[in-house]
Amino acid sequence: MSRAVHVIGIGTGSPAHVTGQAVSAMRACDVFLVADKGEAKDELVAVRRGLCEELLEAGSYRFVTVPDPERGPDASRDAAQYQAGVDAWHAARARRYAEVLDALPVDAVVGFLVWGDPAFYDSTVRIVEAVGRLTPVVMSVVPGISALQVLAAEHGIVLNGIGGPVHVTTGRRLASEWRPELGTVVVMLDARLQCVQLLKRAPDLYVHWGAYLGLPQQELRAGRLADLADELVTLRAQLRERHGWVMDTYALTLPTGTAGGEGTEDTARAIG
Amino acid sequence: MSRAVHVIGIGTGSPAHVTGQAVSAMRACDVFLVADKGEAKDELVAVRRGLCEELLEAGSYRFVTVPDPERGPDASRDAAQYQAGVDAWHAARARRYAEVLDALPVDAVVGFLVWGDPAFYDSTVRIVEAVGRLTPVVMSVVPGISALQVLAAEHGIVLNGIGGPVHVTTGRRLASEWRPELGTVVVMLDARLQCVQLLKRAPDLYVHWGAYLGLPQQELRAGRLADLADELVTLRAQLRERHGWVMDTYALTLPTGTAGGEGTEDTARAIG
Repeated sequence: MSRAVHVIGIGTGSPAHVTGQAVSAMRACDVFLVADKGEAKDELVAVRRGLCEELLEAGSYRFVTVPDPERGPDASRDAAQYQAGVDAWHAARARRYAEVLDALPVDAVVGFLVWGDPAFYDSTVRIVEAVGRLTPVVMSVVPGISALQVLAAEHGIVLNGIGGPVHVTTGRRLASEWRPELGTVVVMLDARLQCVQLLKRAPDLYVHWGAYLGLPQQELRAGRLADLADELVTLRAQLRERHGWVMDTYALTLPTGTAGGEGTEDTARAIG
Repeated sequence: MSRAVHVIGIGTGSPAHVTGQAVSAMRACDVFLVADKGEAKDELVAVRRGLCEELLEAGSYRFVTVPDPERGPDASRDAAQYQAGVDAWHAARARRYAEVLDALPVDAVVGFLVWGDPAFYDSTVRIVEAVGRLTPVVMSVVPGISALQVLAAEHGIVLNGIGGPVHVTTGRRLASEWRPELGTVVVMLDARLQCVQLLKRAPDLYVHWGAYLGLPQQELRAGRLADLADELVTLRAQLRERHGWVMDTYALTLPTGTAGGEGTEDTARAIG
């Protein structure tokens, strides 16, 4: 018999982001599995627990903490080796989750609460797939509001230029990938503001930046990157000091006319 | 005095997509402005009205339909001319909305219900900005679940390859933009399945396709594009025949190892 596993996007921490579909899926869960990633993530775990306390009936669910396996050193620049390291780490996590699942009643419904949207830069869907190769599961996924959407909404911007593309990438890849033709570039998982490296090539870049998006300590800045870069570096360091951690996301655009520009953004045109 | 305008993402038609933040913003609205785009969009307008009936108190709000200005012919392939046409059309819409706003009590809260997320391929934010240049408004934006997120969730996939990028673009741009280095490419606003044009260059492309995402008539298909292309063309035509309109979205990926692959997708790494 297969166990039902819900991978539930909960948005970026604000209970107001949670969709009706997510609440229904959460209510169907008996057990939430939480990876214990150590102190740095304590606040994120606390947000998840708070969300359950706010939205669910006490006693109707429980949390099971699964210690995260150690990751090997990250120094390797060799992509294949790096990939092998990530794969081994995922496999170790999958084994631990499979053991926890096997110890639960067969009819227990299991939930994973995922920060943001499981579709963007989150490993849960892949790990549940790996778990499913060890013990049978039926996975369903509920989308959630992603940090990049909160970034756009809080700044009041449309991510694409008119009819133009949106490219979402990581800090690690930004400097090698960036070209004006990519349109708006949204950068996730960037602990080092890699955009600063682009200033020489693209002095006109505009940045919409946000940290702790959706949380009470949310910070927003927007302006020419050349003008804002120093402030962002300093602010990031101050915020990390003040809160113990910082998670930020930003969108890079060129002034209108240099990217995108062809086509129409109106969904009326998509009806064919 | 400025009028409060809420631009509210409502997801792709399922009331289950609506977030708590969207419900609160909807409850704050006295008047919803709806563009009347003619028969093809009747069902989409009906979904919005149904959502309000389900989520709001009867009599607490009203709908005001604003006829959409005629768009000029679309034949021009000249980007600048095309852009000018879009701009003129936006300006005409903005004037009509500004007239409607000026006729409302100054303390009326105005809402626009946006299909999906206002941050992706929707003109509402830009039109409200244009309205604001004619009559003072204070705009707030609420993110909503986008079709591309429902696509990923319903297929149970992560959009990015491990640590890789996600490129979102339009059918119009796909053939000229596509390169393996873009990572997963999500195509919106494509009435002609432009991906078929890529088959010669990339015979191994895999497609995750969805139509009417989030609606009761939702259809999903996934497989090698080379195997699915004919079926998708036929199915699209049949669905348009059956429902009177069709709106679809799809994600293109190459087999693992050929795109993305470097880096890690785990948000733990973003905490710096």
